[in-house]
Amino acid sequence: MNIIPDKNFVLKVYHNIKNYIHRTPILTSDYFTKFIGAKNVYFKCENVQKTGSFKIRGAINAVSMHLDDDPSLSKKGFITHSSGNHAGALAYAGKILGIPITVVMPKDSKKAKIDAVRSYGGEIVFCEPDLASREATTNKIIQEKEMKLIHPYDDYLIIAGQSTVVYELLYDIDDIDYVVSPVGGGGLLSGSLLAAKYFSKGNLKVIAGEPELAKDAYLSFKNNKLMKPLPPITVADGLRTGLGKRNFEIIQKNLHDIILVEEEEIIKAMFRIFERMKLVVEPSSATAVAAVIKEKERFKNKNVAIIISGGNVDLQDLPFKNI
Amino acid sequence: MNIIPDKNFVLKVYHNIKNYIHRTPILTSDYFTKFIGAKNVYFKCENVQKTGSFKIRGAINAVSMHLDDDPSLSKKGFITHSSGNHAGALAYAGKILGIPITVVMPKDSKKAKIDAVRSYGGEIVFCEPDLASREATTNKIIQEKEMKLIHPYDDYLIIAGQSTVVYELLYDIDDIDYVVSPVGGGGLLSGSLLAAKYFSKGNLKVIAGEPELAKDAYLSFKNNKLMKPLPPITVADGLRTGLGKRNFEIIQKNLHDIILVEEEEIIKAMFRIFERMKLVVEPSSATAVAAVIKEKERFKNKNVAIIISGGNVDLQDLPFKNI
Repeated sequence: MNIIPDKNFVLKVYHNIKNYIHRTPILTSDYFTKFIGAKNVYFKCENVQKTGSFKIRGAINAVSMHLDDDPSLSKKGFITHSSGNHAGALAYAGKILGIPITVVMPKDSKKAKIDAVRSYGGEIVFCEPDLASREATTNKIIQEKEMKLIHPYDDYLIIAGQSTVVYELLYDIDDIDYVVSPVGGGGLLSGSLLAAKYFSKGNLKVIAGEPELAKDAYLSFKNNKLMKPLPPITVADGLRTGLGKRNFEIIQKNLHDIILVEEEEIIKAMFRIFERMKLVVEPSSATAVAAVIKEKERFKNKNVAIIISGGNVDLQDLPFKNI
Repeated sequence: MNIIPDKNFVLKVYHNIKNYIHRTPILTSDYFTKFIGAKNVYFKCENVQKTGSFKIRGAINAVSMHLDDDPSLSKKGFITHSSGNHAGALAYAGKILGIPITVVMPKDSKKAKIDAVRSYGGEIVFCEPDLASREATTNKIIQEKEMKLIHPYDDYLIIAGQSTVVYELLYDIDDIDYVVSPVGGGGLLSGSLLAAKYFSKGNLKVIAGEPELAKDAYLSFKNNKLMKPLPPITVADGLRTGLGKRNFEIIQKNLHDIILVEEEEIIKAMFRIFERMKLVVEPSSATAVAAVIKEKERFKNKNVAIIISGGNVDLQDLPFKNI
């Protein structure tokens, strides 16, 4: 697919995937509403989505649409390189559609992520923890097995899948002033921007939250030019990747603003969500919440919806020691 | 109030408190349903209740009904001794009803619990961490200030308040075979038994989960005689107290069974809830889940509702290190 998904395509995608995913709950919190001073704060909870993040939306969409185009892929299967939520999501998509999935993962990947892929029956091929090894390993397998590569975010079928988060949100609640999403590779954010453009009734603005330590989306947006990713060191492990080309094109044209947040602000926001909402969220999700907390004034008396992108976090090593 | 609450009284209590509490969500989980082999597993989520546990139901009911009987208490206020969820709940009830609350707490209480009481405007009087000091301190204040003592569980107004958890549950889902509740002092369990008796349509059985290390309810139930509490060492800090007299009377007559669980089983169940349901729960809640996991066979193809009693847990010291 080579063009930006239009409104009808997003609707088609939603109907394509809706039986495979949860329609995730939209929660409110008196505490956060008062704390922000907002009219209402809504949390669209993709942390309780199947596989623990929104990534299943794009993964299942891409796999099933590619299969429609090329039935031979049902035997050859799909491949990706990822050590995060996309890997688990693609493996799960393969499991429920009965298609072989291979995931190329750095050999130092976390055990929980490896276990998740294996629990869904995905095959893991380990590589060295660098880009060259990852690409070489992936390309070798693609040539040998004729598998189809599914990129974690720089792909219109993936973007259209992720757009269904905000499609569902706006279907349930039409009076929203701001949608706030985290941004890493930009799959969720670009999908959110498309859905906001196609399905919002009012003057809805989309804002992204990004870690200061991974501010390539911020720099790209401000400089109007796709910038290189920063070293992958932020606590928000889902946001360490560089912004994708297709994602940037959509972001550049439609995004209202990006708010940068410090590591400490991400961790504090994450703690508040655990403590006050009793929800397990990963630091990437907390990045969007931290952005809203950081610029409270902007959201005063507004209806704000925050996308809680995922809940896959190492529970044995939560970053709460110094709070 | 000196008699066991009847059906009409429970209904009256529900209408008395319903505007002050959340009607908490009932969640399901494909993972747990398959893992148990049940027909359906429902989680009644009091961890997202105001103050983070079901205790607010009893507290707000007791305070408001005592005030109706004796308006002078609105100035004199209420007192309790507790280092747990009842303390926070009573302080919160005082805050929203505008009544002074004093809580006698052992001076080694956890900071989070102290902070919770203070955040709701409750006054804290510290005592030595033993029963004698706690009672002496409490009695002294009662005599000086004519405050009304509200016991955490051995009180029919409290029991009636806690019964509204299962009242709500059965209002929403009438086809339930088993309700499983944790048991500590017995406030929630005895309330659940009353609601099950008054509002279930079928042959509903109530089962309790209790830590092996705090099995005074088990011993009392099996010996038909109220037994002394065990040393307060279980990880399920909400279940360390001894069973109450009024609670035991109701339990003795109505309970189907008690399942004992080991510490390790509680912690594993708690981890599974965090990991799979993305919910923050305290070990007491996990005790009920652990009981269902332990005796899976009994719940095979049944509709099982588990009460998730609370979510107030020290997030900086979660017991997940050795899982």
